[in-house]
Amino acid sequence: MAEENINAWIITVGNEILIGRIVNTNAAWLGEKLTFLGFRVERVITVPDSLEDIEEEVGRGIARARIVITTGGLGPTYDDMTLEGVARAAGRRLVLNEKAYQMVKEFYARAGYELTKEREKMAMLPEGAEAIPNPVGAAPGSLLDLGDTIVISLPGVPAEMKAMFEQYVEPRLSEIAPHKAVVDCGFIVKGVPESGLAPWIKKASRLEDSIYLKSHPKGHETMGPVLEIRVLASGKSREEAMAKARRVLEYVAEKARGLGGETGEINCKGEGQANS
Amino acid sequence: MAEENINAWIITVGNEILIGRIVNTNAAWLGEKLTFLGFRVERVITVPDSLEDIEEEVGRGIARARIVITTGGLGPTYDDMTLEGVARAAGRRLVLNEKAYQMVKEFYARAGYELTKEREKMAMLPEGAEAIPNPVGAAPGSLLDLGDTIVISLPGVPAEMKAMFEQYVEPRLSEIAPHKAVVDCGFIVKGVPESGLAPWIKKASRLEDSIYLKSHPKGHETMGPVLEIRVLASGKSREEAMAKARRVLEYVAEKARGLGGETGEINCKGEGQANS
Repeated sequence: MAEENINAWIITVGNEILIGRIVNTNAAWLGEKLTFLGFRVERVITVPDSLEDIEEEVGRGIARARIVITTGGLGPTYDDMTLEGVARAAGRRLVLNEKAYQMVKEFYARAGYELTKEREKMAMLPEGAEAIPNPVGAAPGSLLDLGDTIVISLPGVPAEMKAMFEQYVEPRLSEIAPHKAVVDCGFIVKGVPESGLAPWIKKASRLEDSIYLKSHPKGHETMGPVLEIRVLASGKSREEAMAKARRVLEYVAEKARGLGGETGEINCKGEGQANS
Repeated sequence: MAEENINAWIITVGNEILIGRIVNTNAAWLGEKLTFLGFRVERVITVPDSLEDIEEEVGRGIARARIVITTGGLGPTYDDMTLEGVARAAGRRLVLNEKAYQMVKEFYARAGYELTKEREKMAMLPEGAEAIPNPVGAAPGSLLDLGDTIVISLPGVPAEMKAMFEQYVEPRLSEIAPHKAVVDCGFIVKGVPESGLAPWIKKASRLEDSIYLKSHPKGHETMGPVLEIRVLASGKSREEAMAKARRVLEYVAEKARGLGGETGEINCKGEGQANS
């Protein structure tokens, strides 16, 4: 029987995220994927390109999470050091991985390039890790199963990260994912301040188990207020999750109309794992 | 004399970020602001709407950073609990702040609304904190000066967060910001794989102090590679920072052309603090 509450940490490596040069869309994409697979995303942490910082946060993740996914820092440059940080955090050596070496060698051979020190570096994985093929770019990923925690390291380039996750990581995570369906449903309310609806949101949040209800202000609190009410609900099947979501949202919608609000249609996304 | 290396942590609160319902643009915006003010952004951490998690990460920030900025969780709903988490992490009580109370009261009075329990809750700040006016929405922010660390809490709604930062927080942080100018400059290289340029990037990164040089792959590694080379450079004046950036980038550009690459114009952003 699979566990029902499995936590995941996402650790994104790179100064360019910290300084705001790029927006962390990788974390959002992975967060949604993990959520709909049934995992509970507990942290997203961005660290500098620094061995100590990577080691520290990956180490915390290993101590506390079932799944740790890192993005970034797998490339050929001097500041790509994620796998060394993962290895240290896991108490493993960083070694030349035979399969990763073949992948890197073939990648460059296809384009007529030699293997240099910088290219070979991309085949250095934590001892015992499995190389994840990169169908888009040069750097293989790494999957390190430590028993209590699986540490998965993917590149920071979004096209590479997404392809590797969908082709190799998602099928593996599905094997340990909780057997549940997850949906994310919501609707828009116009004309009610968030603070006016707050007591009903609180009551509604207790109507069902395994739901997370939240109001997102989209306009001004008092001058033409617009709120998005959304619930993340899980159940044994998609039908069950949907029924929970609908019951909670319909309760809030009724209260919102009672306060003079105008409510929109309920919309949903997400499929989750369950057969339904 | 001001310190020259001051670190900052950004802690964004909200399940909606963890599950990927929204992308964390707040962190990128704040990261850029703090960087160009001269601070070194060392962590961006997203935590669930959970008192224990908020307390834990804010507590780590207080122990290690000069500046901790939180976003989100200041509103009127049951799951808005950031300031309670900050208070716990700081070893302070959460108390009704008189100025915050006036702000909230006046905000709702203007729209003809009474003060309810949920609205009053937004005036509860850590003991000793200063209320930050919210020119856009209802919830005041909080600035808690603990001596070694300043903890600043802003709402999660981007328009509110940005207005409060620019009007109240930025002038305050400027007082303790390092007296230096920061620029972020870069150029595009076509036709050279990142792994080919990697040894030169490493050498270039040692040409100057107080720079951070990085290559960002924008295309395929071998089939029509496109790289963006960027450097974050700081100096006593904008001229000094720009001169460092140019020297480093021109070195890389020359090497890239030597490898058969085509290089674009250097572009820069950022002003920093120094008079120049």
